[in-house]
Amino acid sequence: MNDFFKLIRPSDFVALLSDFAPLDAEFVALTAARGRILAQEQTCRESLPPFSRSTMDGFAVRAADTFGCSESETALLTIIGEIAMGTSGQALSLRPGQAARIWTGGELPQKADAVVMVEYTQLLDEETVAVFRPVAPGENVIRAGEDYAPGAPVLGCGSRLRPQDLGVLSGLGVTSVPVYRRPRVAILSTGDELVPTEQTPPPGKIRDINSTTLAALVEEAGGIAVSHGICGDDFDQMLAVCTEALADADVLLLSGGSSVGKRDFTHRVFAAVPESRMLVHGVSVRPGKPTILARQGNKALFGLPGHAASALVIFYCFVRPLLRQYSGLGATLGLQAIRAVTAQQMPSVIGREDYVRVRLTPQDNGAPPLAVPVYGKSGLLNPLVRADGLLPIGRDVEGLDKGVECPVLLFP
Amino acid sequence: MNDFFKLIRPSDFVALLSDFAPLDAEFVALTAARGRILAQEQTCRESLPPFSRSTMDGFAVRAADTFGCSESETALLTIIGEIAMGTSGQALSLRPGQAARIWTGGELPQKADAVVMVEYTQLLDEETVAVFRPVAPGENVIRAGEDYAPGAPVLGCGSRLRPQDLGVLSGLGVTSVPVYRRPRVAILSTGDELVPTEQTPPPGKIRDINSTTLAALVEEAGGIAVSHGICGDDFDQMLAVCTEALADADVLLLSGGSSVGKRDFTHRVFAAVPESRMLVHGVSVRPGKPTILARQGNKALFGLPGHAASALVIFYCFVRPLLRQYSGLGATLGLQAIRAVTAQQMPSVIGREDYVRVRLTPQDNGAPPLAVPVYGKSGLLNPLVRADGLLPIGRDVEGLDKGVECPVLLFP
Repeated sequence: MNDFFKLIRPSDFVALLSDFAPLDAEFVALTAARGRILAQEQTCRESLPPFSRSTMDGFAVRAADTFGCSESETALLTIIGEIAMGTSGQALSLRPGQAARIWTGGELPQKADAVVMVEYTQLLDEETVAVFRPVAPGENVIRAGEDYAPGAPVLGCGSRLRPQDLGVLSGLGVTSVPVYRRPRVAILSTGDELVPTEQTPPPGKIRDINSTTLAALVEEAGGIAVSHGICGDDFDQMLAVCTEALADADVLLLSGGSSVGKRDFTHRVFAAVPESRMLVHGVSVRPGKPTILARQGNKALFGLPGHAASALVIFYCFVRPLLRQYSGLGATLGLQAIRAVTAQQMPSVIGREDYVRVRLTPQDNGAPPLAVPVYGKSGLLNPLVRADGLLPIGRDVEGLDKGVECPVLLFP
Repeated sequence: MNDFFKLIRPSDFVALLSDFAPLDAEFVALTAARGRILAQEQTCRESLPPFSRSTMDGFAVRAADTFGCSESETALLTIIGEIAMGTSGQALSLRPGQAARIWTGGELPQKADAVVMVEYTQLLDEETVAVFRPVAPGENVIRAGEDYAPGAPVLGCGSRLRPQDLGVLSGLGVTSVPVYRRPRVAILSTGDELVPTEQTPPPGKIRDINSTTLAALVEEAGGIAVSHGICGDDFDQMLAVCTEALADADVLLLSGGSSVGKRDFTHRVFAAVPESRMLVHGVSVRPGKPTILARQGNKALFGLPGHAASALVIFYCFVRPLLRQYSGLGATLGLQAIRAVTAQQMPSVIGREDYVRVRLTPQDNGAPPLAVPVYGKSGLLNPLVRADGLLPIGRDVEGLDKGVECPVLLFP
């Protein structure tokens, strides 16, 4: 033992993450922008729609001409023409008593202020239509700029671009958008016992699991995973690989060797990386206590526990919030929380936050689902595979009773 | 008017979707399989871990040798060697009274059944260690096959592959997995009034919005969007484009022209597509009533309303479930539902399912969020951009009172 942990609270850990600056912006094509985060507010430069449009097939009218009409007393209007789709309706102008044929999406003629649905009209001859239901001004019409007017805010900085958001932007003629650059995350597994997935491990060796899991977690969080394979337990080699990996990445995730034993090199390696500064060695969560955070400029170095469940919990609690911070979303979990009910007692310890892997079982009567703990050693993957999410037990709580309502963080 | 709608219930619509067969399987590299759906159960072919491993730095022991020891009465054990990481621990064998140095992840020697943490030992000389806390058999050890034993089911057919699932598979040496092929979705916007995003619309014309929105919705649902641009309101042209698009796709999404007016070609075009069969023209939901479903073999043809909000609601209600059905997930919405409380009265109509766009406002005291309706004409995008999800109002309900608990389907 060379050292002891100096545990910090999870909330203090997250506060450190908020000090990292969002990455610079880049322009991407609108067609490739789904899920990306806007780096600059988008305001409307024109009117959407660009002209007043009919929302129905029927007749463009001056609404006042239909006031008081009914099935027994129809309003007779003179048809002055048809507005073909994709042509300017403004080429026509309605005088009192006149109407123009119009289709859904067509541009209203001048002086028209409403559309009568074709269902409420009857053609008397080619030039005369009888209207038997009145319309109010604006009825069955979307006004020019009613959706977005020039100068209106459309989407704020930090918005995650959803399909409908991209739709609006395309309607406004926006073909590329400024978004925060996706963080590049270098991933490195350490340990003399590791071999890559494609190899059959000889006696005493085991396949690397964390590289695969972490790469998928990074991509799930919107980052770009850059795998650097496996590094043996050798200080010089680790230092060289880490330094090189960081040159091309915003984050380094090094799993294994993050504890305080004789063979745990990570904190010494991180301390030796040029211009690095140690921020955390040990955090009061379970699983995942032996976690390291260091910083080099605006880049982050994470030493993650080698145990699969610990690495995953630490990723969701701290790495994912940092990737969100880099992406302009703020250092938040970004996990959907749902309300559940504990299926059994769950013990914990004062002074430590527990993240219990739980499986959700639906209940009848619309009651919240039952959260069933899937216990297992933190080195096992099986409980993670069987779990739907994590149930946090706070640091001031000795445990949860059976039948208690609690939030569960769903795996994305 | 050539025709009337023959409205079907949403549940009957979804039942039709369940008749489509899941797509065939393909093998993809494990590193590219995140989010994909397993097309075949994965069982374990070996032991994970392949050998009994220590979960701590310390000494491998025969647990019985430590029984009864304490700080005042330590157990003295003879150190017969160290198990270097990545070497076979089984090269050593413990006799009673013996121990071997071991590191986290190291293979236990023969006859060892537990590990004493280094914290609970003291080195008396190079060959003797004093243990002052007893361990039970199996303590600080993960047994060979404890995570997954040979023949154990690992992941079922139809599982969506999450990071931890990929981790297990990589630990088992799986480098590629059989997954359902991603559905290819051809997207076509119709209307003489439409121009592409990159053009400035001349008078009477407007930019195509649905192509962008639908492509993003398809990708969000795991499909592959294939855009076919804009088609004018011309029967022959539409028929040619639809037939060609279907040759290379599993689904055709045609937006606009799905109603029953004189200029609504979609149902006639779909009926004329070779070997097609009309299944639906009109569904009792709002927005989105004028919706068409036809079928050509195992391929689906959707006629979607041209109005942006209608197209989006119909996508989430029916197209997304079909894409999930194709992908082996079953014809379900696949949207997260959370409980909310209505912020105001929301009227509806018997016999129709309403999907109200709502914004969620957090409440204090851990109460469910308020669902605030974002009303607006179905041709407007603004309400969709401001909304967080959809609040369904069932067909047997005239509306919801203020302050009622209800589920809200979150936009993904």
